[in-house]
Amino acid sequence: MSTFQVLEFAKRNHERYLSELKEFLEIASVSTLSEHKPDIQRGAEWLSREMTRLGLQNVEIIPTAGHPVVYGEWLDAPYKPTVLVYGHYDVQPVDPLNEWISQPFEPAVRGEDIYARGASDMKGQIHAVLKALEAWLKKGGLPVNVKIFFEGEEEIGSPNLASFIEKYKDRLSCDLVLNADSHILRPDLPSLVYGLRGLLCLEVRIYGPKTDLHSGTFGGSVHNPAQVLCQLIAGMHDAHGRVTLPGFYDAVRVLSHEELAELARIPHSDEEWQKMTGSPQLYGEEGFTTIERVGARPTLEVNGLLSGFTGEGFKTVLPSKAAAKVSMRLVPYQDDKAVEERLKEYMRKNTPATVRWEVKKLVSGPAMLLNRDTSGMRAASAALEATFGVKPIFQLEGGSVPVVSMVKARLGVDSVLMGFGLPDDNLHAPNEKLHLPNYYRGIEAYIRFFELISGER
Amino acid sequence: MSTFQVLEFAKRNHERYLSELKEFLEIASVSTLSEHKPDIQRGAEWLSREMTRLGLQNVEIIPTAGHPVVYGEWLDAPYKPTVLVYGHYDVQPVDPLNEWISQPFEPAVRGEDIYARGASDMKGQIHAVLKALEAWLKKGGLPVNVKIFFEGEEEIGSPNLASFIEKYKDRLSCDLVLNADSHILRPDLPSLVYGLRGLLCLEVRIYGPKTDLHSGTFGGSVHNPAQVLCQLIAGMHDAHGRVTLPGFYDAVRVLSHEELAELARIPHSDEEWQKMTGSPQLYGEEGFTTIERVGARPTLEVNGLLSGFTGEGFKTVLPSKAAAKVSMRLVPYQDDKAVEERLKEYMRKNTPATVRWEVKKLVSGPAMLLNRDTSGMRAASAALEATFGVKPIFQLEGGSVPVVSMVKARLGVDSVLMGFGLPDDNLHAPNEKLHLPNYYRGIEAYIRFFELISGER
Repeated sequence: MSTFQVLEFAKRNHERYLSELKEFLEIASVSTLSEHKPDIQRGAEWLSREMTRLGLQNVEIIPTAGHPVVYGEWLDAPYKPTVLVYGHYDVQPVDPLNEWISQPFEPAVRGEDIYARGASDMKGQIHAVLKALEAWLKKGGLPVNVKIFFEGEEEIGSPNLASFIEKYKDRLSCDLVLNADSHILRPDLPSLVYGLRGLLCLEVRIYGPKTDLHSGTFGGSVHNPAQVLCQLIAGMHDAHGRVTLPGFYDAVRVLSHEELAELARIPHSDEEWQKMTGSPQLYGEEGFTTIERVGARPTLEVNGLLSGFTGEGFKTVLPSKAAAKVSMRLVPYQDDKAVEERLKEYMRKNTPATVRWEVKKLVSGPAMLLNRDTSGMRAASAALEATFGVKPIFQLEGGSVPVVSMVKARLGVDSVLMGFGLPDDNLHAPNEKLHLPNYYRGIEAYIRFFELISGER
Repeated sequence: MSTFQVLEFAKRNHERYLSELKEFLEIASVSTLSEHKPDIQRGAEWLSREMTRLGLQNVEIIPTAGHPVVYGEWLDAPYKPTVLVYGHYDVQPVDPLNEWISQPFEPAVRGEDIYARGASDMKGQIHAVLKALEAWLKKGGLPVNVKIFFEGEEEIGSPNLASFIEKYKDRLSCDLVLNADSHILRPDLPSLVYGLRGLLCLEVRIYGPKTDLHSGTFGGSVHNPAQVLCQLIAGMHDAHGRVTLPGFYDAVRVLSHEELAELARIPHSDEEWQKMTGSPQLYGEEGFTTIERVGARPTLEVNGLLSGFTGEGFKTVLPSKAAAKVSMRLVPYQDDKAVEERLKEYMRKNTPATVRWEVKKLVSGPAMLLNRDTSGMRAASAALEATFGVKPIFQLEGGSVPVVSMVKARLGVDSVLMGFGLPDDNLHAPNEKLHLPNYYRGIEAYIRFFELISGER
């Protein structure tokens, strides 16, 4: 069966694809909120039915200590490589709900985009891979062996993924991983990620009085934990946008001239970037470009603040505690455990004796640097070039994809990150969307990738 | 009828008083939350029934633009002064609910205290005044004229009180106000408040990107509003615990030697104060004692912080906005409007151009200084001395009672603040309580006050 016929099949089925995708997007598989547990189960069942229907073998919903993994395989291509496809069917929470133009779980097409929670991160890409597999299978079979493996806990830091991979090591053995949880630079400009930032999420808690106090009766005589928290958070950056934690930058990798030159090829305009974010003005570590700041440099962000009374009206309390969710994006060769220690050192040094503090680790994962000259990278690059008509740019990703380091450590294989999200897809935010022309091009690129990788051994 | 017989009547009825008080405390009259509007109405109706039952005249629930006022009067003492009794039947919200040992609206007696939201602030004191009036009325009549006036919006800053007093100026005309929204120093040590801190509550909002952003994709390239908010809040105090807003202390009144000597009579131990608050260590403006810090000095407190994701688990967002509820306790002769301007000036000077800011005033009221030698003060002082067997101490109150300045400005009369709360009553906090022996002594002291003020003209 020629690739041409498989591509033709895919092109004739766009309408059906879209209606199936909508069905998948209607499932509110939010992994971080316990009330959505049944939706997670529905998501896994939907995938399992779909994978069985399109002809995969040994399809199974495999339980974990948390949300289940959906697994399936097709191993009828002897002497050909085995590609392990990774994706996650869980999605981020939807709040603030009132900022959504249409309901997050009622997918709505507006212009060339489909709006729904999980459309870009990453149900759209899971679906595109499945449709590429379907097209090959409808036309006689796949040119390679595939194992498919969708988890339901990526958005909560994949707490059970490492042990799952360890446990099912043999079943998951493969030559390379196709990780569809990725994106490209522009609708017309493909790219391949070769570096990923690591992630360290912590909760910083400050405790003052044993209970909320009346701010009139006690205000001025005890230290306000919200004020102390603000002072500590404020002190974590200096006036040059640098993180002040002791030794924070010590292990940071310096980019080569060749890499800097490749990064400079990325079409980027600070003005457009600013417009996309809606920020009044861009900001960041002095001495670095925006592309470097979001890919090659580590950052520290406050993801959440909570203290005292935050409801309707006001309440003149002196709060008993205050908490911040703080996350750091790490780059090679920073070590997440060392950085966590550095934050604790900062807290020890800077927290006044008028309060107590606590730092709780929520999740962590190391940064990754990928070899750009592997069979997977070559096949992906050629598939993207054939689909988009332009050579992909190698780029550094600001986000974190912890599974990449897990499969490297446990299965001994490299990953290819090939996905079709866009920078303005509103990931983790209201009005998440997927650019439909890219979803269709994604199906094509995956079809080509499976063909190309089969000749790459 | 002799005061002795009236006091005897009161003493014989403690058990009934307690069961009636419990009934009143069961009403969840939280004024700041719209879902409790029906409870506010129930609170007003309960009072109106009770006031009618005990023989007050022209009892009426008077609507306002917000929650209603309950009014009643007894004017059968010709040639005697008229006392306007003020109180509020609304209460603070109950969160954090999980820190309550018993349910906030299921009053529970433990030891000598009754625990319930509003027990000390201030349903207990309203009830004590009503029981004092009842005792006189049961024994033939009051020695003075009274007008009674309970509002339902004190805990939300009395937004309709000034216009209400203005509108019902003639009906409320009186010789002095007995304001029961107050407290004493210790169960065995009465005190009279002669100074009240003013209040200025603001909400400070910082806006960054137009929507929450993925902290991996965008982290490092735009300014995080939660981080900016923390920097701004942190900068509002210096290392000496002083508020840094430009000119904040300019108008602050310096205490006389005589006042400082009187304040020094207040039995106070920093160690006990610290134990009461549960703070690891006390804190405050350098160069002042705790008593001065909570009464004679202005303060700035963060009452609430909210930004980004604060739920279960985590969410790696770069939040689009961050907000803090900030309140300042002002002292004579600070002007709340001038201070608000000073905070805005601080924001203008210190907010970076990478975000937008907004300051919204929630409520304000000036500080008050009362004459210690009026007929009301003398009668209150004598009533307290007769009840407790010890001369009350004149003290400065850290909290704010805006109605004191309203009645001064609109009715031209002074207030006497006589209430029986205690510093450890957990006002505005979980496990609010009322010390029952003080509630009964309060009834006695009010009985004596009405007698003493009748001879004071």
